[in-house]
This record gives sequence, structure tokens and C-alpha cells, in this order.
Amino acid sequence: MSASVSPLAPKSYPDMPPLRGVRMATAAAGIKYKNRTDVLLMVFDRPAAVAGVFTRSKCPSAPVDFCRANLPHGIARAVVVNSGNANAFTGIKGKAATALTAKSASQAVGCGENEVYLASTGVIGEPLDATKFAGVLGDMNRTAAGDFWQEAAKAIMTTDTYPKVATRTAEIGGVKVTINGIAKGAGMIAPDMATMLSFVVTDADIASPALQTLLAAGVGPSFNSVTVDSDTSTSDTLMLFATGAAADDGQVRVESADDPRLQSFRAALDDLLKDLALQVVRDGEGARKMVEITVTGAESDAAAKVIALSIANSPLVKTAIAGEDANWGRVVMAVGKSGEMADRDRLAIWFGDVRVAVEGERDPSYSEAAATAVMRQQDIPVKVDLGLGNGTATVWTCDLTKEYVAINGDYRS
Amino acid sequence: MSASVSPLAPKSYPDMPPLRGVRMATAAAGIKYKNRTDVLLMVFDRPAAVAGVFTRSKCPSAPVDFCRANLPHGIARAVVVNSGNANAFTGIKGKAATALTAKSASQAVGCGENEVYLASTGVIGEPLDATKFAGVLGDMNRTAAGDFWQEAAKAIMTTDTYPKVATRTAEIGGVKVTINGIAKGAGMIAPDMATMLSFVVTDADIASPALQTLLAAGVGPSFNSVTVDSDTSTSDTLMLFATGAAADDGQVRVESADDPRLQSFRAALDDLLKDLALQVVRDGEGARKMVEITVTGAESDAAAKVIALSIANSPLVKTAIAGEDANWGRVVMAVGKSGEMADRDRLAIWFGDVRVAVEGERDPSYSEAAATAVMRQQDIPVKVDLGLGNGTATVWTCDLTKEYVAINGDYRS
Repeated sequence: MSASVSPLAPKSYPDMPPLRGVRMATAAAGIKYKNRTDVLLMVFDRPAAVAGVFTRSKCPSAPVDFCRANLPHGIARAVVVNSGNANAFTGIKGKAATALTAKSASQAVGCGENEVYLASTGVIGEPLDATKFAGVLGDMNRTAAGDFWQEAAKAIMTTDTYPKVATRTAEIGGVKVTINGIAKGAGMIAPDMATMLSFVVTDADIASPALQTLLAAGVGPSFNSVTVDSDTSTSDTLMLFATGAAADDGQVRVESADDPRLQSFRAALDDLLKDLALQVVRDGEGARKMVEITVTGAESDAAAKVIALSIANSPLVKTAIAGEDANWGRVVMAVGKSGEMADRDRLAIWFGDVRVAVEGERDPSYSEAAATAVMRQQDIPVKVDLGLGNGTATVWTCDLTKEYVAINGDYRS
Repeated sequence: MSASVSPLAPKSYPDMPPLRGVRMATAAAGIKYKNRTDVLLMVFDRPAAVAGVFTRSKCPSAPVDFCRANLPHGIARAVVVNSGNANAFTGIKGKAATALTAKSASQAVGCGENEVYLASTGVIGEPLDATKFAGVLGDMNRTAAGDFWQEAAKAIMTTDTYPKVATRTAEIGGVKVTINGIAKGAGMIAPDMATMLSFVVTDADIASPALQTLLAAGVGPSFNSVTVDSDTSTSDTLMLFATGAAADDGQVRVESADDPRLQSFRAALDDLLKDLALQVVRDGEGARKMVEITVTGAESDAAAKVIALSIANSPLVKTAIAGEDANWGRVVMAVGKSGEMADRDRLAIWFGDVRVAVEGERDPSYSEAAATAVMRQQDIPVKVDLGLGNGTATVWTCDLTKEYVAINGDYRS
């Protein structure tokens, strides 16, 4: 947790409404940090439907393995999240730690161990002492309350400089439902599934398979379209829980993601996921600039996304942005190295509304002053048109600053 | 050109022997820099055999296009290289600039324009004023001398902090031959063909097709195995010229790369290419540490190289190395995100001779002090064994420092 808040942080946080069917508590278990909370317990008193997407890393953390194994059961009663230790690359000890934590949680809440979900974030490779949970989960369950979203978001922070929360409402068959979510960043962020920890809860009554479809579709243009440093975590976890409490208001349960009654919910969920994902980028380690990169005219949407990420992950592009340098030549370089089809002589590039390059060379009416004015903004839109087809994609990233290097030069120690 | 020399620079430079058949001159044409040379002319008075490998960027520079077009002709008489402007993404103006430069060079040297080779390095996207060459190439041809390798290497520097030269000898059929080479870095360096500018000349008498085969094979474990910042240049050019002067000593011309008489030459060439490639890494922008990453036990050599580069290009690994932090968890992360097959529980990692992780967790005899002692070295070997197969690869990179950010935050302006 950093001393100073990112200059890109939201100017205000939303009032998070209570969400029926979920209770939360945080505690300071002393896993790594001092003088702050580092454990979050979420309790669903009635079984909740559950969906999850996880890192595509070939070296996933023990909690990711644990969640994947439980997901087919389709019922969630408790979620335990800790910061300070990722329980990743911890071998047999790591598996023992997830087993012990699940047992402690199941006893505290009174549910099956296969109804528990776990996530850990922090340093990789250090054994996690799960006995620290055993002592606190019972108390946490007793004190868990509904209106605790801000505190929940704080408990899972690592190098984050502000807690990330978002809320939306939607209607299903005329019944109002609410979606609340929290997330954490702020480094080892790259779009290869979830890219961090995020937990979203709704009181809607939606079956797990439908939830899974909604979540898998929603993650593409949100969490899977942000990158801080191109480094995909071992622990990326995004979970969506549906408590079903809206059934008390007459909401008829939705079984299929194809159900037309989900139109409003899907839009609200997608919007909330994008909100949280952008909050993660805005708190990228050392970030001073938010960059939205839109690629149009590519051969396909997939090609557009590869090119957009090649730009977003280029150290030379990111340092130029940090230096407020309208160095569009580096954008050309990043397009060229992406491996996707590009025709140099059809390429056009904009910083904000200022077209800086067209038809393979500097714009005839190029104005250094106009381009530099865009670079001085806090939020910088970059647009690249390839002139080849109809493929488009938008991704978000931040600049690469000396602070990123400083933060990561001694994060572990 | 930086004020202070990289701490990783070679402690001494080799005495570069004259090489029969090539003459060189440098000049200050005022393309961008002041008070330094920025043009190199190499002249082959007798037609030289020629080979080249170039960037795989989809947005290559105009000189790269020009060289590719001339290569099938197979004869080189002149090479013109400038620093300060890459003549990349310069559209029709860029093509006109290469045409004018080739014409000036052909008139100065007295050869065909298809016997001229061009390379430019520097800022992308600014039109290159090729009329600046016209005035200097005639004089340069008249004054060009043989023993000018250090000065040649200096003239093509951009953010390099030292000139990169190397020399080797070999024998072909009992006749001694010499190979001299120069190279420049120092950013926008990633292994996707050549990755910078480098020019190698030998007095051996070897036909162009054989040279091309030797060069294409030699670039894989040398220039294509180094990365400074994962950013592939638009201008990467590596060329090999054979003046054939050793024929005067009785060397019988070699027509085929399969000729067994090339054994000594191939070894010397490969060694020289590796020498130059490592000099490029040791002058990586802002570099304070040299890192050699060896991956063993992968499913294939190709998989090993992907994994090695995933580690070498990870900002989190590179910042940890800058911070002298033995953060092997980030190596695990980089293995996991590579997309190649890995079994977390078979993975072992060494820093130097210190095994820090084995069988999917921290080494039982892990010593923070021993690992940290390795990280304090200037040259840091990292080894990862995947325990899956026989695939191996070695790549080289440098750390990511605040100086890299500083250098690239205002390089253009």
C-alpha cells in the first residue's frame, strides 16, 4: 500500500449500496503487512450461484487450482481472500494451506469445503502460514455485515494506492437488481484472464452456468483489455456470485445466458467490469497517465487487439508518454513488430484529435504544438487506423515511469 | 550519444587490424547531432560478395526496403550509413531519399546504384534530407582508409555509450582470413532479426549465397537472442561483406555454405556475431546489469527460447534485477505467462550457482544471503530447468532502470 494516492485515482468513490444475501468482514491476520487489514471473508448465508475466470498462466497459484476444482459444484457459501502472500509456487505446502483455509472457513460458516472459494495476492514463492486464518474466520463470520465494500476492497490491496469499487443496477423481468464489485491491481497486470483479483456480487437470481457465460463474455473487453506491464500474474481471479435474494421481490430465476430478460443485466455487468478494469489501470504502479489505445481498420478484431496490445506494452511508447513526447514513430514501431498484417503506407495515427501521421508519413499539416498539448493531458487517447479491413479493438494502459522501476526494484524486500 | 559510458562496457577495445579490400571514412553531415560524425562510407574497390538479414517489422524503414531490393544482385561496392534519422515511416520522401543517396554514392565510388547498401538509424518519422550526403560522399571516398573501424563504429552511434567493434581470424584451406565487425544499439532492441545496425567484413573469398546461409544461421544464437526492451526496430540491419582479398594469398573461392573448408570461418563468424550482440546488450539504455538467461529441459529448443525471452522481457524481472532483489517468484510468473508447456511442480531455478527453487517451491536449503550475493554481481546468470524434455536456449538482456525511463522520456526532443 503506497503512501501517496495515484493522481489518476477517481475523484470520488461511489456509495456502495448493501447487497442482499452477502455479508463481509475484514481482519488483520498479520500475514505480511502491519497496521492494516489483510483478510477478507465474504459469506453467503443462502447458497449463491458462482462463476469464475482465472489466469491462463501455466504456473497458477494454489488458490487458483482450488477454485477451479470447486467451480463445477456451482455453489458458493464463503470466500476468503488474503493480501501479502500469493500462495503461488509453494508446492505441497501451498496445497496444504488452501486445504487448511477451506476447512477453517467451512467450520466458521457451516458449509462444505467445496462451497468455499479462495484467493491470495502478494509475494510469490513464500510459504503461506494458513494457521493465521484459523483464528480469525470464526469471529469474522459473527461480525460480518452487508455494507462493507470499501473496507473489503482495502483489505485485498497490495501496491494499490486506492480501493477499487463499483456498483450498478439493472432489471430482470421488471425487478430491480444490484451488482457490486471490488478489485485490486496494481502490477503484474496483463490481459490474459482477469489479470488481478476481483469479486462481483449480485442479488439477482441467475443459475451458475448462465453466470459463467456472462462473465466469460464480459471479461474480454474489460479486464482482458487492460495492461500495466505485460506481466500476467499467477493468481488472476475474477469471480461473480449471485445470491438470488431478488427472488424475494418476485424475480423469476434465469437459467440460461440466452434469456432475453438478461439484456439489462448483461449491459450493467459489462459496464461494471469495465469500470473496475479501468480503475486497475488508473492505479498502475507509478502511473501518471492513462492511455486509451484504439485500433481500427485491421484485418480482424483479433488482429486489432494484438496490435493495440503491442502498442500498449511497448516500453518505448510508454516511456514517451511518461515524457509527454508525441513520439508517434514509436507507435509505428509497435505496429510493425506486432506480427499482424499492416501496410506502412496506409497507416494513420492520432493523438487525441490531432492526426500526426497519414499514408505512411508525417501528416502534412502536422503541428508539434497541437500534438504536445494532447500529451500533456492526464488521459491520452491514441488511435491507429490500418486501412486494411473492419477489425477494431480498444485497450487501456498507463505510462512507464521511474516510479514503476522504484516500486518494483524493492517490492519483495 | 550519452555523456557517461555504460558500467557494463568492455574494459578494453580490441586492436582492429586493417582488412584488405575495404576502405572507410566518416564525416559530420549535420543530420541531427552537432560536433560529432554521423555518416559512414564503406568502399569495396573490387566487387564484394554480400549477405544481409533485416528487421521482420511490417513497417520497415526505406533503407531496409532498398537493401532488400539490391541483395539478389549479390555485389556490393559501397555502404552508406547515417545516424540521427532512421528514414523510417517517411513515405515517398523516404524512398526519394534512399534513391538520392544511392545515386550520390554510385557517382562518388563509380559503381551501380544496385551495388550500394544503405542504413539509417535515429528518430522515426522525420524526413531525411539526403542532399546532405551529396556534398560529402565524394570527399569521403577520396580519403577513405583501411584502419578506421573504431571511428566507423562511433559514427553510427545513437544512444550508445561506447563504439562496438570485434575482430576474429580463421583459416580457409590453410589460408588465414580476418573478420571485422561493428555494431550499434542501444534501445529498440529485441530479437526479431538483427535488432540494430551491424556491418561485418571479411577478406575471405566466399560467394554471396554461401555468405547468406552463414549469416542467417549465425544470427539466431547471437543478435536474435538478445533483447534490451522487447521493442523491435523498423531498421534492424545486419550485413556481411566478403572482399575476397584472401584470394591473393591463394585462398580458393568457396561457393557453398556446406563446404567443409568453412568450419573454422563459421566458428569465428558465429563467435564474432555473439561478441557484437553481447556488446549491444551491455550498452542497453540505462543498463547496470547484464543478465544471461538459460532455459533447459523444455519441450523443444523453440519452446525454451520463447520461455527465455518471456523472462528476459518481463518488466518485473528486469526491475527486480535492477533492485538486486532475488525475486525468483517473478521468474515463475514469466515462465507461466509464456504460453509454452511448463509443469509448475517440476520447475527449478538458479541465480548463479544458487538453486533458489526446486520441484515447484522454494529450495529447502534456500539462502537469501547467497542469492542476494549473486544479485549484487554485475553479470547475473539465471537458469531455469523445466524438467520436461531436452530443449535449451540462452538469451541475454539487461536490467530495467530509472535511467532507461529517463533516456526514453525525452529522446526525440
